[in-house]
Amino acid sequence: MADKKNKSEKKDEVQMTFPESSAPKKQSSNRSEKVNDKSLNPRDELTNLGRSIVGDINSGKSPKIEMAVRGLSNVVYDKESKTLSLGDKTAQRFFFNAAHSKKFLQTIEVAAICKTLLDVQKHASLRDVFYMAKRTIPNTKINVVDEQKESDKVIEDLELITGFSRENLNVNANKMGSVAGKVVIEDSGDTIDWSRLGSGGWSIPSNVEKITFKKVDAKFVIYMEKAAVWERLHEDRFWEKQNCIIMSSQGQTTRGIRRLLQRLNSEHHLPILVLTDGDIYGFYIYSVIKFGSIALAHMAEEMAIPDVKFLGVTMDDIVRYDLKRHFIKLTDQDRSRIKQMQAYDWFVKHKDWQRQFKMMKEFDAKVEIQSLSSKGISFISEKYLPEKIKNKEWLD
Amino acid sequence: MADKKNKSEKKDEVQMTFPESSAPKKQSSNRSEKVNDKSLNPRDELTNLGRSIVGDINSGKSPKIEMAVRGLSNVVYDKESKTLSLGDKTAQRFFFNAAHSKKFLQTIEVAAICKTLLDVQKHASLRDVFYMAKRTIPNTKINVVDEQKESDKVIEDLELITGFSRENLNVNANKMGSVAGKVVIEDSGDTIDWSRLGSGGWSIPSNVEKITFKKVDAKFVIYMEKAAVWERLHEDRFWEKQNCIIMSSQGQTTRGIRRLLQRLNSEHHLPILVLTDGDIYGFYIYSVIKFGSIALAHMAEEMAIPDVKFLGVTMDDIVRYDLKRHFIKLTDQDRSRIKQMQAYDWFVKHKDWQRQFKMMKEFDAKVEIQSLSSKGISFISEKYLPEKIKNKEWLD
Repeated sequence: MADKKNKSEKKDEVQMTFPESSAPKKQSSNRSEKVNDKSLNPRDELTNLGRSIVGDINSGKSPKIEMAVRGLSNVVYDKESKTLSLGDKTAQRFFFNAAHSKKFLQTIEVAAICKTLLDVQKHASLRDVFYMAKRTIPNTKINVVDEQKESDKVIEDLELITGFSRENLNVNANKMGSVAGKVVIEDSGDTIDWSRLGSGGWSIPSNVEKITFKKVDAKFVIYMEKAAVWERLHEDRFWEKQNCIIMSSQGQTTRGIRRLLQRLNSEHHLPILVLTDGDIYGFYIYSVIKFGSIALAHMAEEMAIPDVKFLGVTMDDIVRYDLKRHFIKLTDQDRSRIKQMQAYDWFVKHKDWQRQFKMMKEFDAKVEIQSLSSKGISFISEKYLPEKIKNKEWLD
Repeated sequence: MADKKNKSEKKDEVQMTFPESSAPKKQSSNRSEKVNDKSLNPRDELTNLGRSIVGDINSGKSPKIEMAVRGLSNVVYDKESKTLSLGDKTAQRFFFNAAHSKKFLQTIEVAAICKTLLDVQKHASLRDVFYMAKRTIPNTKINVVDEQKESDKVIEDLELITGFSRENLNVNANKMGSVAGKVVIEDSGDTIDWSRLGSGGWSIPSNVEKITFKKVDAKFVIYMEKAAVWERLHEDRFWEKQNCIIMSSQGQTTRGIRRLLQRLNSEHHLPILVLTDGDIYGFYIYSVIKFGSIALAHMAEEMAIPDVKFLGVTMDDIVRYDLKRHFIKLTDQDRSRIKQMQAYDWFVKHKDWQRQFKMMKEFDAKVEIQSLSSKGISFISEKYLPEKIKNKEWLD
């Protein structure tokens, strides 16, 4: 009952399956050129889109929008950058084409909404944008959009068209998660010290693009899927003792969190260590942070973090820390997810990971990270984590 | 996939259904006497429990634990205090009784864990406590607990036995939610200004018992179920313009949030206004905050907030703000929940609420709060809310 909401905003968490054979060439990265070229901004890009359509109209052509093809057929795992990205297939969307015209209209409508958001310097959620676009076309019974997935799709298109993430188009994802550590940031005119926020920590916003890091005194970041583990480490002042940043969500790794991790990694060269349950979903959380996901292949540069490490709980930890008595039997769904993940391009030739999958199948069981509490309430922060970090016992 | 975790920690959100006929007398509130008597603390209460059992043993009696009966047969809706609470039925749990002995053992085991937590001044989650209690009894194959619901149940028993909430026994609930406003608190040695935390706000901890309010400059609190709405109001600095506190979770009203609302209401006399979707689940969120829930009837004094108001979205708002075009058809589940809630003791004779239920059934539809965005991105913060608050258009 508590969880009926915002399902539509969870699509970053889509399932990744694609055949190794379908590997198109990587696109010549129009995006990154734009992002790096400071003279261009999202507002100008949207204006350019409008101008190009007006140009088509004035010269008597069918107005068109051009963008890279998304989806399996154009997603490539780039072995060099070690992320998913888009190939070089492009598609055109025409106004005078019965199959395209609605989508064309939707694209222009949502582009106009984003332009307004940028003009008035406000942010909207995906759900807000849907309602803002959901109007009936005059003298018809046709709505511009009927379901949120239509406006969501168009926002992804606009990311491709403009070369800017939806956060830069002032469209926010979900808000979730907390952070603590010896870091001082500036955000919306406030100076915020992540080390002085009591037991709660700083609440991570859905959009972290405008944050400025003023001081970052940390050697690494631990990202954990469970807020309860975060509270354990925070109460034990783990971030102070280990000179690190601790960050958590509750189950879902939102885009805000992924971008915050990515910025700490790329701007401050902090290694990111992922801490989850010892189950296939934990491995999947790591996989998405590291390599990206199909739905966001066009955003890999801003979302994926190739040098993230999986700290635990590994299958070896189960043996070493004597956790077998806390085994939870795998479900059929677990087993089929293991099979899928074993076949991923980036895992299929990776001996260490294949070993993990194999051990999990042999155990036919998983463990929760909180089973470490059976060793003592602060076992995780006083023994398990310091030992693993000191010995660099992580999976790459 | 993102939501598979911590289901067991969501039990505060249980369904409330109980017949009006089964109304035992209200207990003479042993709890509140204890809470108000500053000479007693949770640690002493646990020590007393141990002493009484040792006393039984020394005098050759079967060791026993006495507590109020929980569950439907002993839950009463107190029309005076307008909350759910426990009646005066009590039960005894004996060690030398085949039907009781395991539960007896579990109670003592978990009591010992809580005493340790209090001794070392650390906090654990429900899941941690489960793993700490999950040991095999020597020379047997029997575990003290096999499933978390067993230790959870015992923690609720200990709340009854000691007269202290599990937060006071250092057992934490879920962590979730953000808050902003002109409030300064002290927590874990830090002074935190809720008005100076950038776009993120303060992350609400699972346990707010130790927070001290140093300055509260606000006229009321708006609690909203959706974090995206919170971000909208925060970006518009609604809390500054309206001199209020804004608080949100993401779907789930955790115990930490409920206690924070309750403390702001009881210690600072701030009215609490609840803002949700215009659907039966929104009404239910309000109902739980206002009256409490069956599972927590023994905690009503610390959890329920009798003078909370439902600000919106009401069925009348749908008409007044022309939201019918954003109608979402009711599901069978919605319809059956309406029927259940209509029959609740505290709604059954309430004309205004019965009218809401009736309108919802006639519409056979619900609306989301974000449908207000169709009127403009800041319609909610610039028109809808100020208008409703000024005219005191809420449901009691």
